[in-house]
Amino acid sequence: MAGRFITLEGGEGVGKTSNMIYIQSLLKDKNISVLQTREPGGTKLAENIRQLLLDKGQESIAEQTELLMMFAARAQHIRHVIKPALEQGVWVVCDRFTDATYAYQGGGRNMALSVIQWLENFVQGDLRPDLTLLLDAPVQLGMQRATHRGKLDRFESEKMVFFEKVRQTYLTIAEQQPERVKIIDATQSLENVQSQISNILSPFIHD
Amino acid sequence: MAGRFITLEGGEGVGKTSNMIYIQSLLKDKNISVLQTREPGGTKLAENIRQLLLDKGQESIAEQTELLMMFAARAQHIRHVIKPALEQGVWVVCDRFTDATYAYQGGGRNMALSVIQWLENFVQGDLRPDLTLLLDAPVQLGMQRATHRGKLDRFESEKMVFFEKVRQTYLTIAEQQPERVKIIDATQSLENVQSQISNILSPFIHD
Repeated sequence: MAGRFITLEGGEGVGKTSNMIYIQSLLKDKNISVLQTREPGGTKLAENIRQLLLDKGQESIAEQTELLMMFAARAQHIRHVIKPALEQGVWVVCDRFTDATYAYQGGGRNMALSVIQWLENFVQGDLRPDLTLLLDAPVQLGMQRATHRGKLDRFESEKMVFFEKVRQTYLTIAEQQPERVKIIDATQSLENVQSQISNILSPFIHD
Repeated sequence: MAGRFITLEGGEGVGKTSNMIYIQSLLKDKNISVLQTREPGGTKLAENIRQLLLDKGQESIAEQTELLMMFAARAQHIRHVIKPALEQGVWVVCDRFTDATYAYQGGGRNMALSVIQWLENFVQGDLRPDLTLLLDAPVQLGMQRATHRGKLDRFESEKMVFFEKVRQTYLTIAEQQPERVKIIDATQSLENVQSQISNILSPFIHD
């Protein structure tokens, strides 16, 4: 049986990393083989592309360049990591995926929805996440947490209005695809967030 | 007045480098400001993408990844180098451009024409070369010359059948767009090649 494809989404500082670890342990407790990965990245080449994308160099990156680099890394990740794992029955848990492109490059940078949709179909064919957990928190709160982690990358250095658009786009996607995308209030205590994640995953695991 | 956009195309070992220098000196003799550049590359980020593309690493690059990286680099090159130069009246002479994508990723790797066309329109808008010089030589001959230059990159390491498809695609483009694309027989002596280039450029310069 093919593995399931779960993605974790959300803005800066919403606690994706700790919850990734929790999801992985939850699945492993059920004897499910899990591969944890992230975007942009997940292969050597895709991680190199990630570095170029996050680097705050002297040269500003054109919106089109950024979008195409995201999908270039994604194509490599799908071909070499995600698809082979799913075909072997391994579940894939991915820190950010194409919803992030809609949120950051679409919402944040105003790239046309139709352009992102075309690239999504070109690169992914019919591959879509089976389940997406959207960790949601007010922008101000998330940015405080992200700033505490230390040096900000090129995306984290954007302005508040950018992150507001990112958040609104994420929430719109969740509204439009409630079956796939589950909103989790990331302002709750970690215990409450994890119990909510566990409740969402439980029927999904026993399907 | 806007500058003109001239591209130089051709397979491996057809003598693009020496003819680039010749074209530049020809235009400078006419007091035309010239910017010489190349693809993939032309900006710091685009050159970084080029390095990833030419590197013969352990990880094979998915066709879609290669194509998207080419256009990501191109978007950056157009935005930061080509368009600003043309707008200032500088002529741009570019070593390879989108015809190479049709030839290598389309012809060589069988990526669909409609996909490349979509990306071309997305990244370039209405920017197209005003003139393209296609240096043509039998594959065998070009490869002998390229091999003599030393270590082959990821593209140069492809098989003969790949380069045959590249060459045929270039020739097909020239056949379909004879106004823009001029075929130059690169098996001639350098003197004859350069006199042919000079003849092609002459009316173009005096327009």
